[in-house]
Amino acid sequence: MKESAYLKQRRVGINFNDAQQAEICLWAPTAESVEVELENGSLLRLQKQNQGYWHATTDQLQPNDLYKFILDGTKKLPDPASLSQPNGVHEASAAIDLKAAEWSDEEWENPKLNSYIIYEIHTGTFSTAGNFDGIAEHLDHLLELGINAIEIMPVAQFPGARNWGYDGVFPFAVQHSYGGAAKLQELVNTCHAKGIAVILDVVYNHMGPEGNYFGEFGPYFTDKYHTPWGQAVNFDDEYCDGVRAYFIENVLMWFRDFHIDALRMDAVHAIKDLSAEHILQAIRLEVDALMEVTGRTHYLIVECDLNDPRFLDSPEKNGFGMDAQWIDEFHHALRISAGEPTTGYYSDFQGIRHLEKAYQDAYVYDGQYSEHRKKNFGKPAKDLQGSKFIVFSQNHDQVGNRMLGERSSELYSFEMQKVLAGAVMISPFLPMLFMGEEYGETNPFLYFVSHTDPELNKMVREGRKAEFAAFHAEGEAPDPDAEQTFLQSKLQWELLSKPQHQTMFNYYKALIALRKDNPALSNGDRSRITAISYPDKNTLVLKRWEPRQQIVCILNFSKEKQAVPAEDSIHNWKLLLSSADEKWGGPCTDDGACQEVNKLIIQPESILIYTRKDA
Amino acid sequence: MKESAYLKQRRVGINFNDAQQAEICLWAPTAESVEVELENGSLLRLQKQNQGYWHATTDQLQPNDLYKFILDGTKKLPDPASLSQPNGVHEASAAIDLKAAEWSDEEWENPKLNSYIIYEIHTGTFSTAGNFDGIAEHLDHLLELGINAIEIMPVAQFPGARNWGYDGVFPFAVQHSYGGAAKLQELVNTCHAKGIAVILDVVYNHMGPEGNYFGEFGPYFTDKYHTPWGQAVNFDDEYCDGVRAYFIENVLMWFRDFHIDALRMDAVHAIKDLSAEHILQAIRLEVDALMEVTGRTHYLIVECDLNDPRFLDSPEKNGFGMDAQWIDEFHHALRISAGEPTTGYYSDFQGIRHLEKAYQDAYVYDGQYSEHRKKNFGKPAKDLQGSKFIVFSQNHDQVGNRMLGERSSELYSFEMQKVLAGAVMISPFLPMLFMGEEYGETNPFLYFVSHTDPELNKMVREGRKAEFAAFHAEGEAPDPDAEQTFLQSKLQWELLSKPQHQTMFNYYKALIALRKDNPALSNGDRSRITAISYPDKNTLVLKRWEPRQQIVCILNFSKEKQAVPAEDSIHNWKLLLSSADEKWGGPCTDDGACQEVNKLIIQPESILIYTRKDA
Repeated sequence: MKESAYLKQRRVGINFNDAQQAEICLWAPTAESVEVELENGSLLRLQKQNQGYWHATTDQLQPNDLYKFILDGTKKLPDPASLSQPNGVHEASAAIDLKAAEWSDEEWENPKLNSYIIYEIHTGTFSTAGNFDGIAEHLDHLLELGINAIEIMPVAQFPGARNWGYDGVFPFAVQHSYGGAAKLQELVNTCHAKGIAVILDVVYNHMGPEGNYFGEFGPYFTDKYHTPWGQAVNFDDEYCDGVRAYFIENVLMWFRDFHIDALRMDAVHAIKDLSAEHILQAIRLEVDALMEVTGRTHYLIVECDLNDPRFLDSPEKNGFGMDAQWIDEFHHALRISAGEPTTGYYSDFQGIRHLEKAYQDAYVYDGQYSEHRKKNFGKPAKDLQGSKFIVFSQNHDQVGNRMLGERSSELYSFEMQKVLAGAVMISPFLPMLFMGEEYGETNPFLYFVSHTDPELNKMVREGRKAEFAAFHAEGEAPDPDAEQTFLQSKLQWELLSKPQHQTMFNYYKALIALRKDNPALSNGDRSRITAISYPDKNTLVLKRWEPRQQIVCILNFSKEKQAVPAEDSIHNWKLLLSSADEKWGGPCTDDGACQEVNKLIIQPESILIYTRKDA
Repeated sequence: MKESAYLKQRRVGINFNDAQQAEICLWAPTAESVEVELENGSLLRLQKQNQGYWHATTDQLQPNDLYKFILDGTKKLPDPASLSQPNGVHEASAAIDLKAAEWSDEEWENPKLNSYIIYEIHTGTFSTAGNFDGIAEHLDHLLELGINAIEIMPVAQFPGARNWGYDGVFPFAVQHSYGGAAKLQELVNTCHAKGIAVILDVVYNHMGPEGNYFGEFGPYFTDKYHTPWGQAVNFDDEYCDGVRAYFIENVLMWFRDFHIDALRMDAVHAIKDLSAEHILQAIRLEVDALMEVTGRTHYLIVECDLNDPRFLDSPEKNGFGMDAQWIDEFHHALRISAGEPTTGYYSDFQGIRHLEKAYQDAYVYDGQYSEHRKKNFGKPAKDLQGSKFIVFSQNHDQVGNRMLGERSSELYSFEMQKVLAGAVMISPFLPMLFMGEEYGETNPFLYFVSHTDPELNKMVREGRKAEFAAFHAEGEAPDPDAEQTFLQSKLQWELLSKPQHQTMFNYYKALIALRKDNPALSNGDRSRITAISYPDKNTLVLKRWEPRQQIVCILNFSKEKQAVPAEDSIHNWKLLLSSADEKWGGPCTDDGACQEVNKLIIQPESILIYTRKDA
């Protein structure tokens, strides 16, 4: 990639220049001719440029006008770089002037990644309205909770109005039913005004199955590699530069034109690229160049299932320079500790021992043989600070990939839910919550789609079934295509006014405040941590410290009171939090812990957090 | 990979223990039962061990005995880790005791890679005998030439007796018609006695098409990736550990049991591995461990068409730690400079300008757009010393992949051949010759096979035809399967006694001596080199220096006398070599060069090498 090529605006799609003329650009390297059909039916011919790009400038196309491309005189298609699909994925694109947005966030400063407390949101089910305005409504709730970053699941235009977002087929177009580009810009502006950063989930490893016209425009896909979702996106085969530029421009657009603070790139292990410069390295370089120009900070976060620290290593070390990655393994170990059956992808996990390893080493598998994967897996994540890893006890996948989409609230006792939340918040990694978990939302988060192709819906249903077979799930999965499945997955904000849910909310609030207030919890220093597990007690002791503070946390996942060795008299320590305390709805009226000779006693299913008094 | 697991001996295949019992081991992770059938027809059952390995110890199998494996009671097959296939690829394997070899090379020290002068040999066509003894016969010739490393094309057992070696299907078995394992061990011992290192070409990116029974034993292949040769070897999919161990053991065997000094791994760009630890990194670690134990030095060289310096970077930089790689691009630029038409894969190359870039940057494409590849290609090879790259003006591929297999001797004038040789020898990279070029062998090096499957032969013929279409070659390709094609490709040693060939030999000898004697030529220091090309003159000036010496080389690829700017009086410089000199069969009786004011004159198709007198 040539650096800094498109820092000012997108190359592909439609941009409005200073004279408010539309600059139209399409990448179609194998096309013989390209025309644009305007709303009034008139045709405009594009001129061929270098490397497969086609171009025209016109006065005839204004913001909000509809248009389609016509390839080789016959194929009439929406713009693959469309900014808006007001009538769905199969219909005409609409021109938008992204520069028309009004911004008031000049003073906004993206917090240090190390301080992020992330809250994952699915726009459609987060609020009654199911759109960006609906998110804005609840921002004060999130502020009260202590959140400083929301992560919005993918918003690229998908078929219909109900989708998790991973079936998007217009990476540049913001889902119309969510409010489109302008409403997203407005939401980000509002978030920034309130001190909340915005992470956007983007999908670069595949394209959705319906409305996927990319193949008509050029070799967006390659059959060099197989992926679980069919053809791999072409990042290293012939003509890949147009595809690479397309995604790089997409990254830059979110940062530049939407003021997004961080991208969370979906399943980058499915991005197959053996170029000398991996696409993630190229993205890193381009984002660095953009940041230099704008003076703003933007983070690149990946979901990655390879346990390969190279994704996080610096470019100087041939790394991809990503700022952080999700680690599902922490979640799996945590869930097993809490009693999850070891079926499916959980089968590799041993609970408390692996939780100990995750606290200590980030990756649970860093070279060991994995029975589930049937191979040795991973590499040690040495020398990478805690903020390079994002952990959670729930997320859209871990909840929604269950047949019945049960949240922890339906799977674990009230006391255990508090242990899970605590386990995340005391980790040296970045904590992430899944919307609703902070007050124990009881509705499921189910898998739902709204494809218009019945064949596709059938395939989706059958695919889900096969997946659940691995978990030996019984009963019938809700129909992904039924509107009811979607509606059933909405948050019930009214729960917040009920005492138990209010208590949970207050507990989460206290936990988050605790993390923020105690540097030994928030420092992300992986060199100052020890985790010791007691498998027969299903209990773990985590120590974290920094020059001025020592913290000890004891987590009891068992249903019995447990005793763990104490190095020190309880009198030297101050209790910061006991989840078993009655003020958090727990059974204990005292602080829930006491010490016998050399032993620390902890209540069933509870977490204790102490700090050393003299510190 | 667990380190140091198999440093003492191979795990798979047959080893003889101290009590001379045969230890039989097979990796067959999906088999239900495994037996070995001995020569006398008796069957021996193997016991299942961990991770798909099967094992037995027996007195009934002696060195040279034949055996086969029987899988699941029905499939009778040769051993995939066989050391010997005396009756071809479809028949029984023979047990061999590799430890029986007699070695006298305790004093041998592998030269520094930086000093290697490499000579590539195809065993079958190098000598009349066409085997390892035939190579031994000519070692004194190579010593006289100045060679200190021979590179033997692959010797893994292939179908029939005629093959380049890239159709091998028994990576552990030395081709029987070449003399088998014992004769290769003997050859290496002889080479070491004479001060010659031995590089072995090995193929880990695919298996040959005939006699390929790997799929019967386990998932040696994966359909995750497509390669030009069909299924990719399984280096990162389920069950890959057995496959990875198999190749790692192969590497270790050559070094440990055959005293091979360096491996040249074929086309590693076709090794698809997205594990956190790439197989080449794993091989690097295992070889390092072996070297620590044995105290010997072994090099890992790769053929790689990705222009990705990561293959050469150190493991600390997430590199694969390879010691060196071939660079075809130098060859292509050199050939175009010499007049090769820019068809097929030459179409990306511009001759002298690209030769300049190759001298300067090693990779010609290090990020630029390649028309042939239809994408931006490569990454700069910064901070990598010259000995990390191997260059040549001919090699088995570049000669043999021509339809008529013509060597430079048939394509270029006598004078131009000397320029090509000089261009290689003055480079900061490691020089490699292709057998016979040192005396201008006139026989072709054709593509030949001896598959027994007629369908396969047909496919090979047609595949070749399609390849040549890209070069617009006319006429008919020789039949790869005809014995005559093979015989026609043999070296004609008798040519050496003819004056012109003798002259060429002496010229090569002088060039090699010059490189060895002049530190500014042999230092491999890429920071002390400048190359300036004069495209309109098809002439290039290369300067190389080090603290005590300066060298200037002028290469004129044109058919005219040329003048290039001179910075300095000719009187300050001493001529080391002029290829146009009559003593090298050239047209000039004086030193072939003279200086006008500020100009240095050079004869058509010639090379001049000067050193500064006061140095």
